[in-house]
Amino acid sequence: MKRVVGSPGTWSGMALRVSQCVFAAASSAAMSSAFGSLNYSAYFYLNTALVLQFLWSMGFACQDIFALRNKKDLHAEPELVLLRAIGDWVLAILMFSGSCAAASVTIFFMKDVKFCAEYRRLPCGQFELSVALAFITWSLQAASSFSGFWLVVSFF
Amino acid sequence: MKRVVGSPGTWSGMALRVSQCVFAAASSAAMSSAFGSLNYSAYFYLNTALVLQFLWSMGFACQDIFALRNKKDLHAEPELVLLRAIGDWVLAILMFSGSCAAASVTIFFMKDVKFCAEYRRLPCGQFELSVALAFITWSLQAASSFSGFWLVVSFF
Repeated sequence: MKRVVGSPGTWSGMALRVSQCVFAAASSAAMSSAFGSLNYSAYFYLNTALVLQFLWSMGFACQDIFALRNKKDLHAEPELVLLRAIGDWVLAILMFSGSCAAASVTIFFMKDVKFCAEYRRLPCGQFELSVALAFITWSLQAASSFSGFWLVVSFF
Repeated sequence: MKRVVGSPGTWSGMALRVSQCVFAAASSAAMSSAFGSLNYSAYFYLNTALVLQFLWSMGFACQDIFALRNKKDLHAEPELVLLRAIGDWVLAILMFSGSCAAASVTIFFMKDVKFCAEYRRLPCGQFELSVALAFITWSLQAASSFSGFWLVVSFF
């Protein structure tokens, strides 16, 4: 049971959580530091999702590190594994919708109305960077979700 | 096996496919008839996804009707069921990303920069209608995807 790659209390699971934290923090930092970005609904939504993602991954990263140090088995309670898997899925969907929304507004600025070329004050480079990092965060979160789903299926 | 709700060759499956067709066609019509909408990448992307969705659902609706009339079993070949399920998932993800992208640009027009109140020629009502219909299409497609996934799981 414990051999599912990326499941709670394994080295791969901890690595996934830590990298989710790092990418979510980097993406949120790039977005928050971009001048005026949070006035746009799509960017604000993405930033909220990123903060939630950071807190969620941080909590589980700490739990994984604790479990690894104390050789504790995190698979003992199926209810907790199920709850964790459901939370992972909800967060993955949230992150995906936020990334798509922010990407579409960024493409609108860059390609459709060419605001980026016209208004030099608009920090388009930072928007782009943040969206790219958000997509990486989402793919890491999707990996965690699939691993959690696999674990739940192997329980029931 | 054939009792999975919404699976190929059942009445519920056919009803799902037909309603996907109807909503995709309505959403695409609302988008295409909105003046200048296809100049925006997000709306163009949504429209492409809707056309793909329409063709895909139309094909399977016809197959379902044929199978129901001729009492043919569509579950005989596991490979085809698997391919259909994978296609359903890809299309559901495509539709979701398209709907989110179009919704975020519409919210940008309406709330963030208030273009809708300023430029009366911008058909914001049609954008809104199309996005709402696209989200309904996506949820119907998600239902088909889950039913297909369930069927695949019951095979293997």
